[in-house]
Amino acid sequence: MDRLAFPSSLPSFSESAPRALAGRLFETRKLSVELAAPLTAEDMTVQAMDDASPTKWHLAHTTWFFETLVLAPHLVGYCHFDETFNYCFNSYYEGLGPRQPRPKRGLLTRPSLNRVLAYREHVDHALMQLFEQDAASEPAWACLIEIGVNHEQQHQELMLTDILALFAANPLRPAYRAAQPRSTQARREPPRWIDFPGGVRQIGHDNVGFGWDNEKPRHDALIHPFRLADRLVTNAEWLEFIDDGGYETAALWLSDGWAAVSREDWRAPLYWEPGDGAWLGMTLEGLQPLDLDAPVAHVSYYEADAFARWAGKRLATEFEWEIAATAARRTGNFLESGASRPMPAKGAPIDQPRQMFGDVWEWTQSAYLPYPGYRPPEGALGEYNGKFMVNQHVLRGGSCVTQRRHMRASYRNFFYPHQRWQFMGLRLASDID
Amino acid sequence: MDRLAFPSSLPSFSESAPRALAGRLFETRKLSVELAAPLTAEDMTVQAMDDASPTKWHLAHTTWFFETLVLAPHLVGYCHFDETFNYCFNSYYEGLGPRQPRPKRGLLTRPSLNRVLAYREHVDHALMQLFEQDAASEPAWACLIEIGVNHEQQHQELMLTDILALFAANPLRPAYRAAQPRSTQARREPPRWIDFPGGVRQIGHDNVGFGWDNEKPRHDALIHPFRLADRLVTNAEWLEFIDDGGYETAALWLSDGWAAVSREDWRAPLYWEPGDGAWLGMTLEGLQPLDLDAPVAHVSYYEADAFARWAGKRLATEFEWEIAATAARRTGNFLESGASRPMPAKGAPIDQPRQMFGDVWEWTQSAYLPYPGYRPPEGALGEYNGKFMVNQHVLRGGSCVTQRRHMRASYRNFFYPHQRWQFMGLRLASDID
Amino acid sequence: MDRLAFPSSLPSFSESAPRALAGRLFETRKLSVELAAPLTAEDMTVQAMDDASPTKWHLAHTTWFFETLVLAPHLVGYCHFDETFNYCFNSYYEGLGPRQPRPKRGLLTRPSLNRVLAYREHVDHALMQLFEQDAASEPAWACLIEIGVNHEQQHQELMLTDILALFAANPLRPAYRAAQPRSTQARREPPRWIDFPGGVRQIGHDNVGFGWDNEKPRHDALIHPFRLADRLVTNAEWLEFIDDGGYETAALWLSDGWAAVSREDWRAPLYWEPGDGAWLGMTLEGLQPLDLDAPVAHVSYYEADAFARWAGKRLATEFEWEIAATAARRTGNFLESGASRPMPAKGAPIDQPRQMFGDVWEWTQSAYLPYPGYRPPEGALGEYNGKFMVNQHVLRGGSCVTQRRHMRASYRNFFYPHQRWQFMGLRLASDID
Amino acid sequence: MDRLAFPSSLPSFSESAPRALAGRLFETRKLSVELAAPLTAEDMTVQAMDDASPTKWHLAHTTWFFETLVLAPHLVGYCHFDETFNYCFNSYYEGLGPRQPRPKRGLLTRPSLNRVLAYREHVDHALMQLFEQDAASEPAWACLIEIGVNHEQQHQELMLTDILALFAANPLRPAYRAAQPRSTQARREPPRWIDFPGGVRQIGHDNVGFGWDNEKPRHDALIHPFRLADRLVTNAEWLEFIDDGGYETAALWLSDGWAAVSREDWRAPLYWEPGDGAWLGMTLEGLQPLDLDAPVAHVSYYEADAFARWAGKRLATEFEWEIAATAARRTGNFLESGASRPMPAKGAPIDQPRQMFGDVWEWTQSAYLPYPGYRPPEGALGEYNGKFMVNQHVLRGGSCVTQRRHMRASYRNFFYPHQRWQFMGLRLASDID
Repeated sequence: MDRLAFPSSLPSFSESAPRALAGRLFETRKLSVELAAPLTAEDMTVQAMDDASPTKWHLAHTTWFFETLVLAPHLVGYCHFDETFNYCFNSYYEGLGPRQPRPKRGLLTRPSLNRVLAYREHVDHALMQLFEQDAASEPAWACLIEIGVNHEQQHQELMLTDILALFAANPLRPAYRAAQPRSTQARREPPRWIDFPGGVRQIGHDNVGFGWDNEKPRHDALIHPFRLADRLVTNAEWLEFIDDGGYETAALWLSDGWAAVSREDWRAPLYWEPGDGAWLGMTLEGLQPLDLDAPVAHVSYYEADAFARWAGKRLATEFEWEIAATAARRTGNFLESGASRPMPAKGAPIDQPRQMFGDVWEWTQSAYLPYPGYRPPEGALGEYNGKFMVNQHVLRGGSCVTQRRHMRASYRNFFYPHQRWQFMGLRLASDID
Repeated sequence: MDRLAFPSSLPSFSESAPRALAGRLFETRKLSVELAAPLTAEDMTVQAMDDASPTKWHLAHTTWFFETLVLAPHLVGYCHFDETFNYCFNSYYEGLGPRQPRPKRGLLTRPSLNRVLAYREHVDHALMQLFEQDAASEPAWACLIEIGVNHEQQHQELMLTDILALFAANPLRPAYRAAQPRSTQARREPPRWIDFPGGVRQIGHDNVGFGWDNEKPRHDALIHPFRLADRLVTNAEWLEFIDDGGYETAALWLSDGWAAVSREDWRAPLYWEPGDGAWLGMTLEGLQPLDLDAPVAHVSYYEADAFARWAGKRLATEFEWEIAATAARRTGNFLESGASRPMPAKGAPIDQPRQMFGDVWEWTQSAYLPYPGYRPPEGALGEYNGKFMVNQHVLRGGSCVTQRRHMRASYRNFFYPHQRWQFMGLRLASDID
Repeated sequence: MDRLAFPSSLPSFSESAPRALAGRLFETRKLSVELAAPLTAEDMTVQAMDDASPTKWHLAHTTWFFETLVLAPHLVGYCHFDETFNYCFNSYYEGLGPRQPRPKRGLLTRPSLNRVLAYREHVDHALMQLFEQDAASEPAWACLIEIGVNHEQQHQELMLTDILALFAANPLRPAYRAAQPRSTQARREPPRWIDFPGGVRQIGHDNVGFGWDNEKPRHDALIHPFRLADRLVTNAEWLEFIDDGGYETAALWLSDGWAAVSREDWRAPLYWEPGDGAWLGMTLEGLQPLDLDAPVAHVSYYEADAFARWAGKRLATEFEWEIAATAARRTGNFLESGASRPMPAKGAPIDQPRQMFGDVWEWTQSAYLPYPGYRPPEGALGEYNGKFMVNQHVLRGGSCVTQRRHMRASYRNFFYPHQRWQFMGLRLASDID
Repeated sequence: MDRLAFPSSLPSFSESAPRALAGRLFETRKLSVELAAPLTAEDMTVQAMDDASPTKWHLAHTTWFFETLVLAPHLVGYCHFDETFNYCFNSYYEGLGPRQPRPKRGLLTRPSLNRVLAYREHVDHALMQLFEQDAASEPAWACLIEIGVNHEQQHQELMLTDILALFAANPLRPAYRAAQPRSTQARREPPRWIDFPGGVRQIGHDNVGFGWDNEKPRHDALIHPFRLADRLVTNAEWLEFIDDGGYETAALWLSDGWAAVSREDWRAPLYWEPGDGAWLGMTLEGLQPLDLDAPVAHVSYYEADAFARWAGKRLATEFEWEIAATAARRTGNFLESGASRPMPAKGAPIDQPRQMFGDVWEWTQSAYLPYPGYRPPEGALGEYNGKFMVNQHVLRGGSCVTQRRHMRASYRNFFYPHQRWQFMGLRLASDID
């Protein structure tokens, strides 16, 4: 879609600017628009459900974030694009004023997509100016830019999961992208189990490179010896759970989970639909047959927990996961792979867990709580992560629509136990007696 | 908006076709697209609330109506534009298959607006062919075309009221059309009262020209002598009601009305907002000062009833209204006037009620029930009006966004007593002792 | 239950008092306590659902009614029993102050039953004093006493229907009274049809004896010729409707009715339960086999309307019913009969409709609206009937738990179309072409 | 109330039975009935809200627990009291069959209180027989009896908190017990802070005496150095929080907490009501002035967390609390003290925290999750604790209505973060940098 193409007239910035940061920034800014390219203005405006947001809103909100937190305080003479946008595109920052209620983001047919794109250009140019204005090797706002880049990367993932939610609710089951060939053969190899020793270990961000406040401070944690499956739970295994009456067996479920199963009439992961004798799954490529060796996705914490109990295992804690991930290579099926769907584990099992990164976020047994000594940042950014530290569970590792550069072993994502619309799956763990 | 322009290549149809009917048909078809012209594709896709529908859905549904009820049974060899559209655009016809749930019409970002416009062209051309295929002076399908035209006229009114609902929910308060000058002077003349004698009178459609099944059969009704205000209740009068504590005085309200006031925290008509020392009203021209002499609009039955009680009067019955309207000239501030908002009563009071037609639908005291001897039509059209004959009240006279050609004295509109988003107002009545 | 027995020490009142009124009053007061006799204090305290009230609350509220509307204004030196009772036992009179929210009447474990019974004695004695104080042949408060008696009679009916609701929600399905033998033979005679001529007829209360404001004023109404079944629709006939797929056939239902069927999963009248190969019905005698010739009860307006459509008939209007009832004898299966359940029509069909009175309230096609010239009484009693004149339908004739002395041809009862917990049924009607 | 007195005819059991266990059992059984003594049958039947249960239900459910888990499997020839009671009084054991829905426990006016008391006697006698039947020094069922005793002790606490909820919802604000004198003087001493060192420490039940499965297995945990207030947060301190705008300052709240504040319009702890110039609190002694030095109670986790943030502190983790409590004496204001309300901290501050036990349950920062290596028991008892390990937070220490014998340092209670009807409060903690 031509009109979505990134402005070619992006001003080149001077040698004296911190080039690397600017590179990451404008590459990220460009990617948002590219990810929206397969969508119509109509697709970008509508909100699939309360949890999701419209693409247009994501495009504007990420821009508002830079305008409000970087440009307004730091660019001399910055002129706001439109004073009404603070109301429209503030997400949840109580300290930054009233805002469009979250479940009503989809009512914002105005400002139009074109105006939002103009907003992006306006802000991009101003960010450019900022780099030119302040050529210090590490200007005061550099870390705010970094935060803004990481923030926009998060919203890029949400753009894709939210569009999937929208298209899954559409009776035409549209595809975001053309379908790619997928294997129908299932190897169905059982997982291998990898043992990890216990002990006091360092957990949390090591302060090298960017990290969110919720990954900090780095601190000691006591790990008990544990065992981890070398790969994620697959669709084939989930089918066994279904066929064994998993969704009808109260004894497997947490009480709140069983209530959700009954109330919502869950019978399979979100986006699964009965086809002619076999389940189909709604994907970014439209409705497709299940890839049986691929990791199961779109399951709630309740389902992940019930599956683990059925399998005689448990979910890992976030600390166990981090110990294992720190030892693993940070590669995997991320957005950059171009698959945009979870893929079967590659390669033969070795003594390292596979699929620690990418494919699907892995539910952990750990509630999302502050680390010992945690302090939220001052000001509006203090609302970024800290105020959500109740009622949610930690997920780790990123997914097929997360960017590799965005991910690390200490990264903590968090969702409510009933939520399913992200690429969420699980890996089994167990104690070592 | 160019792409919305009606196809100029509309085939001229032969002399042998019933020209007048075709004229009305294609004029109506064209008007839908013209009414949508000020809107973006985004505006046309979103659903403001459960009661409202997106413009795009209206454009498609009215087309589906012709396809399903006229073309499929009557045009030899008619080929459906898209088999999935029956699910997408069936409104409430249980006899015509399952459908997109009403509150989820706004999720239909696909089919796109362009595809819906192509659908309209496809169906328009097929309707053309139908006229050419069957040149009888009164073909079997003529009355179905007539129904389809009247059906589309109803949706044209809804397009405007639904867009107003959407824009009123938008923090930018966009305007559908440029604001026209409005008087700020208030004459505030009291209404004049016009007496009508009692007796047995004929009520209902006289079978001359088009009429809905719910206006029939024409039947005798006993009218008691009554008195009617010569004009609608005005915004100025409504302000007196507010200032006199109307919304805080339980004794004025029906019990269900008082519950609504308390639950919804009603303090003024829908779309009124406190401005700087004076109320503003959201209109198709955006947020505007109240025109004090103009009829109040966007009040529920509960509010209309409470106002009448406060004024020591009552609402008219639908029969009283019809008696008065039959004697009046069928002129008024309809869509054709171009105002698209209720206007002050024109001219000096005479011995005829003014504003019987147009401006705002007038709530009547009459529940929406079948006339004696009423029988719904056979087949799907039997669902058009009959199945709604409970829990609603009759409104009469049309509004500033109704078409004059659509209106008549026997016309019965109906809404739930809590609904406010249509152009709904009231006229006072009383008994003659 | 001994402690519920009416005080034998009831003071005899002097010859000079209006004996007949006092007789009715104290007989009615006594009946309330007698009706409660089979119940425990626990039964009398709990509220089955929002629409129902606890027996204890009924006992207190009817007493509060006399205290507030009769004693406080008219008995010199009357001393309120307990100042907190106005809050506890005001039902819905906005003009009489704030009150316990309706859905929370069942939280009133205090005041205790014993205290409520003492309240009754206190008020009864004061009423006695009132008769002695003012020996005029028609004291100013006589009509208030009359209203209070009729008010308490209404609550006596509600006591029984509300207890049935409570016991039906109890897994033990307790019986309010011992089961009486019931026939299991079904005669299944088709109804006979009785024709009534049209014309202008007088409708409403004739001002002889007591009547509610909503039955007045008596006025002319135009009746179209109609036909009425000589008896109520029976359980046997309702089974045919069920077996013919009545609850699965959208085309038979009003739109709001079909929504209720789907939402509430209605498959049969309220209180019907599948037994071993046959339906059972929960009654005041516990769970019992259906009496097939008895009138169907506990159906909503939606169901009554759907049944009539299925049968190719319609419901009567309230005016049609009144015309027929005025000609009929005011006898029937009322509370006085002792059956406390609907009974098969007695006797051979003649040229008069049977079962016009008693057995079940008959849903009419008529919305509950004010009669021409209706004016509510001044003061709090103005809230008694008038403020409910929206969203409800009129029912006529009384039921097996109504008192015969409470009923008359002009009597208008009213409920919401979805309600089912009263003894509600239907009689078929049709036009005469 | 005489009829509630425990049967004096309780059979003495033989010397050969394990006397101590039997002693604890029958003492506990007796206490339940004693606690109900101030209540009427009406009070005992009604359910204040979904979270609470009626007293009568508690009396029956605790009895059902012994019948189902002890008598049916272990007493030869045991005869169930009533087969319908399993449906009525099973709480949440999916493995033990269908049951009365939790929010409808208050509809059970039958079985009557008298029948429930007879049920208790029946089961008590059978338990007696069990002791006589099996005189082994440690019979197989001994641990089940122990569980049943502890289970009933939990319900004894709930009986009091649920009655408080019921009486607080009653406009008469009844008292469960006569008011005792309370100080109105406030000393308002600031808390003293006590430091605890870090290190790997043993956490969980030590397998000496009774413990729930959720306190086990005992395991190592890494503790970071921390500081604890020597007493609970007081009503006086909570007033400061209110006066400082605590309930109006979004920045102090978790996001879900702020949503609850807004939705529920929280302005103070549950049961606080504005009096004449000072807050009053609803207590088991009716509506009373606040004891300013007493610990605040009836605050949610959200409120506790916001208060701690306002104070610049945090809540303790459950492990920190346990470390401190293990060192403290297990004394405090428990049910046995007779106060039945939180009391000001006694004595001068020393180097030990006071009020660790009793007064109010202390919210901890810790989500309620399984301990490392946790395994629920086999069978129905596996549902006792394990299935609730999501969405809740741990509270520690017991309250003024917990029994001292029921409490220990490793005891884990758990509630949802929005719940307030228990005696819940908080103690401040902080890191040691």
